[in-house]
Amino acid sequence: MIKARVTVTLKNGVLDPQGKAIEGALGALGFDGVGHVRQGKVFDVEVEGTDKAKAEGDIKAMCEKLLANTVIENYTISLD
Amino acid sequence: MIKARVTVTLKNGVLDPQGKAIEGALGALGFDGVGHVRQGKVFDVEVEGTDKAKAEGDIKAMCEKLLANTVIENYTISLD
Repeated sequence: MIKARVTVTLKNGVLDPQGKAIEGALGALGFDGVGHVRQGKVFDVEVEGTDKAKAEGDIKAMCEKLLANTVIENYTISLD
Repeated sequence: MIKARVTVTLKNGVLDPQGKAIEGALGALGFDGVGHVRQGKVFDVEVEGTDKAKAEGDIKAMCEKLLANTVIENYTISLD
């Protein structure tokens, strides 16, 4: 069983209202000096087998098809 | 300006219906051998200043107060 972590983040230039809301909330809570905040998603995926190259290829296909919207999002895959 | 990445994941044992839905969707798309999937959140936060220890302390406080629900979620902080 291979464990992988997929991190999906918005591309630069894509508006992130959720991140902006967090920025505002942190300021309202008294945290000074907070710059930009961007929110993304993380997926911990388990794949059967021991072939890391195959697993990475499979997970890349999962990202392209389901986990990320590649028009507006980037993704990175890190295998354990 | 210090950049940090905060990763928030559900604690073990906490039900993750979103992760289960992704598992089901991956199976329906024809991906075999997918084990458990868990979904979490990631926040890219910029903090002013150059004192990394202070920045890490501030970000930890942000996690405790706003970014994570520590009853059901774990968080990790990594500074660039």
